Amino acid sequence: MIVLNKLNETIEYYVQLIEGINYKGNPEELYHPINYILQLGGKRLRPVLVGMSAELFDGNKQQVDAIAKAVEIFHNFSLVHDDIMDNAPLRRGKKTVHEKWNTNIAILSGDVMLVKAYEELIKGNYTNLDSIIQVFNQTAIEVCEGQQLDMNFETRSTVSLDEYIEMIKLKTSVLLGGAVKMSALAVGANETNAHKIYLFGVNMGIAFQLMDDYLDAFGDPEKFGKQVGGDILCNKKTYLNILALEKDTTGEATKWLSSTNFEDQEKIHALLNIYQTYQIDEACKAKMNFYYELALQNLKDINVTEDKKQVFIQFAQWLMNRNN
Amino acid sequence: MIVLNKLNETIEYYVQLIEGINYKGNPEELYHPINYILQLGGKRLRPVLVGMSAELFDGNKQQVDAIAKAVEIFHNFSLVHDDIMDNAPLRRGKKTVHEKWNTNIAILSGDVMLVKAYEELIKGNYTNLDSIIQVFNQTAIEVCEGQQLDMNFETRSTVSLDEYIEMIKLKTSVLLGGAVKMSALAVGANETNAHKIYLFGVNMGIAFQLMDDYLDAFGDPEKFGKQVGGDILCNKKTYLNILALEKDTTGEATKWLSSTNFEDQEKIHALLNIYQTYQIDEACKAKMNFYYELALQNLKDINVTEDKKQVFIQFAQWLMNRNN
Repeated sequence: MIVLNKLNETIEYYVQLIEGINYKGNPEELYHPINYILQLGGKRLRPVLVGMSAELFDGNKQQVDAIAKAVEIFHNFSLVHDDIMDNAPLRRGKKTVHEKWNTNIAILSGDVMLVKAYEELIKGNYTNLDSIIQVFNQTAIEVCEGQQLDMNFETRSTVSLDEYIEMIKLKTSVLLGGAVKMSALAVGANETNAHKIYLFGVNMGIAFQLMDDYLDAFGDPEKFGKQVGGDILCNKKTYLNILALEKDTTGEATKWLSSTNFEDQEKIHALLNIYQTYQIDEACKAKMNFYYELALQNLKDINVTEDKKQVFIQFAQWLMNRNN
Repeated sequence: MIVLNKLNETIEYYVQLIEGINYKGNPEELYHPINYILQLGGKRLRPVLVGMSAELFDGNKQQVDAIAKAVEIFHNFSLVHDDIMDNAPLRRGKKTVHEKWNTNIAILSGDVMLVKAYEELIKGNYTNLDSIIQVFNQTAIEVCEGQQLDMNFETRSTVSLDEYIEMIKLKTSVLLGGAVKMSALAVGANETNAHKIYLFGVNMGIAFQLMDDYLDAFGDPEKFGKQVGGDILCNKKTYLNILALEKDTTGEATKWLSSTNFEDQEKIHALLNIYQTYQIDEACKAKMNFYYELALQNLKDINVTEDKKQVFIQFAQWLMNRNN
């Protein structure tokens, strides 16, 4: 209970910190979209992880405010540019930047956000700034590589499960890993511990994304917050759909997942049936648990007292028990 | 003559340095465009300025290779994204990245380039990395602001000359200033000298852009390398056209510059006539010279021996006497 209160406090701290960001500048077409996307809400998972990592290694949250902001701004930069590429009309139920303004403004304000992330990083006055930026750079490049792979997968007829895991690792997970690693380095953790918390972040991130895939098909429509079955309707190569295409040799899965020319509910129903027939839901959950357990093992390996790790375990459980 | 040889040597050094950049990575859709745009050629003015600035303050070119690469990569990043926004089919006579690949790849490989610029910067192992990155960040943001202003101007009926100068200062000149300032800081120049060489770069950059505007209308078609009169045909708010709209109260300039519904040669001829009538070519040259002289004064103010400045004077004269 005390641990849960601690986690809630940390979340609240970062909700406030990010809410406090308000860029001003000229021309305003460049800055309004940045403040707009940053204020759309969200769980602020990445900043929360940054703060937790600092405290794990005997630092405090304030020391890593700069990293928390940089990571959240970078994450939102990637959303703005990804939304253009994915032609997405909505983000958290609100218009995406390129819809509310236009594509050019979304490209350019995204570019400014990427630079702002570095600007925030510098403000931390870290003595090992070069090591921290190095992690940031590598993470940023890998996130772009993940997005390109994701786009490539759209036009490929087959994608292997391993390729899929590699893609979500790059697109989603390395940023969680990078966030905790930068924070660890900033408060003076040694390289070994910094690497282990990085692995925790990456494995947790993969589990998190697999949970997303699972919830997209099996989430409670009341709680999920987006249309259940969205990944099915757009034939997205998720863990579930890749496995459906692999396991189902009758051609049914291929038929449903190679066209958008079907009635929505009928298509979702057909795929859910295939998932059930081949126990694909269970396979996805098993894979998710595999990465969740890996993450917990990474945490166990870190050389700090066990009581300090409790909030991470709480956090991991919270992520795995979520329904949205 | 010795000075000119020195300048040519420096140019050759940077042509080689940039030619040597060859990024490898996966997926290759992300890296081929980066190498493609970096190898399209060009005068490599920004790296040349970086090298000259290092030598001005008793450093050597090798010390600032990292900055030279970062600045050139950043410049090319901005070209890739600007070309999307401007819907430009060609760059240096070759297909732009979004034309050769597609818009999504151009957005994403541009993003990677921006990160690569920081990656190169880090490689310099500068003890004052934070100050150098700070200059880089501010420059990068101002370049984006300049591009947004330029786009805003397209849809505005009137733009003042002062607004125009401010726009080209941001879009083009601050990068020249930032390049020489970062280099000066990297080799240990003091803040005062670093600021003066920054001003030299900025003022030189404004003169350079005004020269571009001038050449677009009055350049020798044989030597200019792009279509003479291009800015006239697309009603671009250049120094010449803004002045034409201001000076010509007969409504002629407004008529020609508010539509693209005219025969090309007729339109160019009409505008050239207006330029001549109101001595707009002379006004543009005078403004260019004003900034050129300012730049030379900034150079004069720098506290190093005069012989070290000769190559800068040569460089400035070369830029001002160019015909392409």
